[in-house]
Amino acid sequence: MLKLQVTGKTILSSIRCQRKMSTCSSYAFGPYKIDPREVFYATPLSYAMVNLRPLLPGHVLVCPRRLVPRFTDLTADETSDLWLTAQKVGSKLENFHNASSLTLAIQDGPQAGQTVPHVHIHILPRKGGDFEKNDEIYDALDDKEKELKQKLDLDKDRVDRGIQEMADEASQYRSLFDC
Amino acid sequence: MLKLQVTGKTILSSIRCQRKMSTCSSYAFGPYKIDPREVFYATPLSYAMVNLRPLLPGHVLVCPRRLVPRFTDLTADETSDLWLTAQKVGSKLENFHNASSLTLAIQDGPQAGQTVPHVHIHILPRKGGDFEKNDEIYDALDDKEKELKQKLDLDKDRVDRGIQEMADEASQYRSLFDC
Repeated sequence: MLKLQVTGKTILSSIRCQRKMSTCSSYAFGPYKIDPREVFYATPLSYAMVNLRPLLPGHVLVCPRRLVPRFTDLTADETSDLWLTAQKVGSKLENFHNASSLTLAIQDGPQAGQTVPHVHIHILPRKGGDFEKNDEIYDALDDKEKELKQKLDLDKDRVDRGIQEMADEASQYRSLFDC
Repeated sequence: MLKLQVTGKTILSSIRCQRKMSTCSSYAFGPYKIDPREVFYATPLSYAMVNLRPLLPGHVLVCPRRLVPRFTDLTADETSDLWLTAQKVGSKLENFHNASSLTLAIQDGPQAGQTVPHVHIHILPRKGGDFEKNDEIYDALDDKEKELKQKLDLDKDRVDRGIQEMADEASQYRSLFDC
């Protein structure tokens, strides 16, 4: 049996994390392949990734690993795991960003504003006064959903937020979890 | 052992339903007591109720039975049950209202627009063109959230939609479930 010399909890966590993430190095988001460096938390059934253009600090997406378009397509295990993941991610990111509330939303189907046909939960840490009118967040969320598809369709337009910036953010979030 | 004479599945379902609902006849929503006639589906951990002023046909709320203000306050069992309930309710009501999508949202905490400090999922069946701009649904949702609190605070103002209308709607929805 291989024994590792480790000097502290951080290294142990880091090794565990890398091992866990490496077993799940392929992530689909609808028809798109997601760079694993954008993923900061994963379970066997769900994953959480940073956003191409976050609307607010900590605006992330939680998705089932299995590519299904509608919420009703998920099995009971997938549904539970998806929302337990969202609960954990939301709580960690709310604290990390010194926020005091969360917006959690699924645009489930095209008539609800869904543009990428793969179930995804938007999680946004909220603070007092982050939007002039509270409900402007949803207008912006809808615009972002449209933008997300456009941007995923056109890789050349992804200059606004490069993979390095996203990888750095994901790395920061990854350290919030035990994985 | 008591044996009941029954003539069909409908009566059996109705008996089962009444039995199940009667074991859960007290529902709290934050500081407010909810009339059980407004509740159309319940599990030991969650319940679904019609809305005082629905924004769209089939706009309902799904809540945990335990009064907790934030999503993170729920146990894993409560979280799973809440979202499995929402999944079931959303699917049934989308079909019932001939809709093609769903909006599912939690305003989790006051800075996210929550006015009643008890976790609740808004579920809205969506159709093409139901709102001129898709994101107007959220503006309206936010206004409704404020209205909800005002209305629950002031019973005398509940004339716009009386208990009978709400009970009738709940009764219709109740028949969609096996309970």
